[in-house]
Amino acid sequence: MIGGTDETHDPSLISWVEGATDHLDFPIQNLPFGIFSVGDSTPRPGVAIGDHILDLTRVASLLPAAAANVMGGQTLNALLALPCDDRRALRHRLSELLSDGRHRDQVEPALNAAAECTLHLPCAIGDYTDFYVGIHHANNIGRQFRPDNPLLPNYKWVPIGYHGRASSVRQSGVPVLRPNGQHKAPDSDSPAFGPSQRLDYELELGVWVGQGNPLGTAIPIREAERHVAGFCLLNDWSARDLQAWEYQPLGPFLAKSFQSTISPWVVTAEALAPFRAAQSARQEGDPHPLPYLWDERDQQHGELAIDLEVHLVTQIMRDSALPPYRLSHGLATNMYWTVAQMVAHHTSNGCNLRPGDLLGTGTISAPTEDGFGSLMEITRGGTQPIELPTGEKRSFLDDGDEIILSATARAEGFRSIGFGACRAVVLPALGAP
Amino acid sequence: MIGGTDETHDPSLISWVEGATDHLDFPIQNLPFGIFSVGDSTPRPGVAIGDHILDLTRVASLLPAAAANVMGGQTLNALLALPCDDRRALRHRLSELLSDGRHRDQVEPALNAAAECTLHLPCAIGDYTDFYVGIHHANNIGRQFRPDNPLLPNYKWVPIGYHGRASSVRQSGVPVLRPNGQHKAPDSDSPAFGPSQRLDYELELGVWVGQGNPLGTAIPIREAERHVAGFCLLNDWSARDLQAWEYQPLGPFLAKSFQSTISPWVVTAEALAPFRAAQSARQEGDPHPLPYLWDERDQQHGELAIDLEVHLVTQIMRDSALPPYRLSHGLATNMYWTVAQMVAHHTSNGCNLRPGDLLGTGTISAPTEDGFGSLMEITRGGTQPIELPTGEKRSFLDDGDEIILSATARAEGFRSIGFGACRAVVLPALGAP
Repeated sequence: MIGGTDETHDPSLISWVEGATDHLDFPIQNLPFGIFSVGDSTPRPGVAIGDHILDLTRVASLLPAAAANVMGGQTLNALLALPCDDRRALRHRLSELLSDGRHRDQVEPALNAAAECTLHLPCAIGDYTDFYVGIHHANNIGRQFRPDNPLLPNYKWVPIGYHGRASSVRQSGVPVLRPNGQHKAPDSDSPAFGPSQRLDYELELGVWVGQGNPLGTAIPIREAERHVAGFCLLNDWSARDLQAWEYQPLGPFLAKSFQSTISPWVVTAEALAPFRAAQSARQEGDPHPLPYLWDERDQQHGELAIDLEVHLVTQIMRDSALPPYRLSHGLATNMYWTVAQMVAHHTSNGCNLRPGDLLGTGTISAPTEDGFGSLMEITRGGTQPIELPTGEKRSFLDDGDEIILSATARAEGFRSIGFGACRAVVLPALGAP
Repeated sequence: MIGGTDETHDPSLISWVEGATDHLDFPIQNLPFGIFSVGDSTPRPGVAIGDHILDLTRVASLLPAAAANVMGGQTLNALLALPCDDRRALRHRLSELLSDGRHRDQVEPALNAAAECTLHLPCAIGDYTDFYVGIHHANNIGRQFRPDNPLLPNYKWVPIGYHGRASSVRQSGVPVLRPNGQHKAPDSDSPAFGPSQRLDYELELGVWVGQGNPLGTAIPIREAERHVAGFCLLNDWSARDLQAWEYQPLGPFLAKSFQSTISPWVVTAEALAPFRAAQSARQEGDPHPLPYLWDERDQQHGELAIDLEVHLVTQIMRDSALPPYRLSHGLATNMYWTVAQMVAHHTSNGCNLRPGDLLGTGTISAPTEDGFGSLMEITRGGTQPIELPTGEKRSFLDDGDEIILSATARAEGFRSIGFGACRAVVLPALGAP
């Protein structure tokens, strides 16, 4: 999948679907997959095109057989399980159906106005793994704990990751309840239980696993990209006070498991082919990756040139109809390890990935403050609150705050494509159980 | 579910199934659920009775309606999702069908010889969470890292846990491949990649979640037992060299995710009612649990009186037909936190559990050496190898070694019941990818 653009990426390609051509997220060069419903209909696979969603079940007879066979379910797992050549053939056919006016009569009745649709989780997520490949984030967080030695000795050898909670992943738009939990003040002898006082977001990319691997086998680094079906945005909500008290010695648990929010469209690896970028976070003098993590092609196209932004809307801003406030702006190339390295590492011990598994990159922060991917970093652990245009201050999130992640892939000579919204409002904690 | 025995536990109750009465694991007082197949048949729900398996799909018309309705699938998830009163009614009916000779003609044709059946994973495991409630294990492991301060300050406040890998859980009998991975010798500047040299087992109980809870709600401690459907044995295979190098700062990952082995029978909470025991691992002067973790009934019946054993069979022992060598013998009451506390804590932040989720207790070690639940403890981190009757020595596991976990619940005045086998042979690592 590395590189390799074709006519589906042609920036002059025009869809006959009204409003699609200039759509910021979903021009015909994108064609992301999702699961949607209209009214009380059964959730079903669809493709975003402009402000519409094409119902794939209603055009199945026009699709390649391999793809048509996997349109029956309420998730995309079977579609993601297809070999990437089949997914590519489906993309080609959809590009043709939505650009060539001769198909319009057959296809147009299967379009739904996106505004009238409900989006669902795209997959039944078997396992969710979160990595830690944002090196500037690792540095920023590490510095708060270990000022002289922010990065641990394993960081530049091991794509550090841990298992997350699959059951509580939710799509954009589902509110997140402030979690209750144990937190211990530094000057207290004992912890207290109650609503988190240090609720934070984390800006991440999510990776959708395509074809899996049998237990006991490893995916070689040169084949790893073929097992990546697509991408989404991921907000790994984090309760920093719960995290600080619970995380030793086995890592984050309840500080993260109350909810994770993803953008519901699977932006395919094929759609992102024009936006591959050279590895840049690796520095002179860094250790050479061990052979099972080394693919020389990664140096040229291992990363993704994706602009990432985080915006905040407070209750006051919402009531006053003020525009969202931008908290940060950075680039996805600030990843120390590539997605291929994440996949090769994850399976190097024989662990099996399954279609529809979700991998998070970990928080992607830029090297400079305007691109930090969490409030923990922006406010230096809450010690330097930010002031908003409304005069409000924030060290961490208040009830009523909404966090909006967005992503746009850009490259010279290509149409930009976006990921769609990844947003959720923070609601007050429930009373103690 | 706490306490509460009834006629299904009557030790004088006799099954008409031949050989069931004196069966060590599966007398009629047990009646564990599982998923089995015979030859090429579709996997289906069954109940163990002596050396037989009752095909529940073939007696569905004799079962209570709520239970009969959930016998159609290839997993027990729907059965586990039933309210515990329905599960209890099913138990009563099965006890009746298998003891009252008047049902024999109808039921006997649905019996299969267990030796001719294949057992499968009982559930599609949505999420697998591993706790750390074996306080002697936490002490033993902690002492190897921090001799003066083995238990971290949070241990007696927080039921420490972390997310495990659901995709690589396998049933007893499936061999485990020695994992490859990164390990770094203390005197080396850089890590190497290759087969783990410090492969270990961990003796745990597994807990099957019954009814779940919606995201954003917490299960109160007094209701927590009602969400526990049953139990199994769990071997949380661990590559100690991979673990030592990878686990900071986010916890264990590839050191554990290559495979976990469970016993395939779901021994129900109802079957274990006679074997409840008082909490004993908590000591005078320990902090009182926070209110969300406190149920005064736990002091009397929070734990389970289950004998746990670990045996080793090496290739040489197998070739010479020598009996398994017992590595340890201890009690499940060596748990600092109860299963109810694990459930209440897990959901206290609103995290949703789903039917068929698996919770591990963490390694259960006795306070004394003869009951340590891992080789890491028995051999003091590999520094004091054990000598086997064959003259072989072991610091960690060799290829060809088989680990067998077993469990028997015992209580005065009741029939003992067992969990069935949890065993797997270690196979050599595959070549590097």
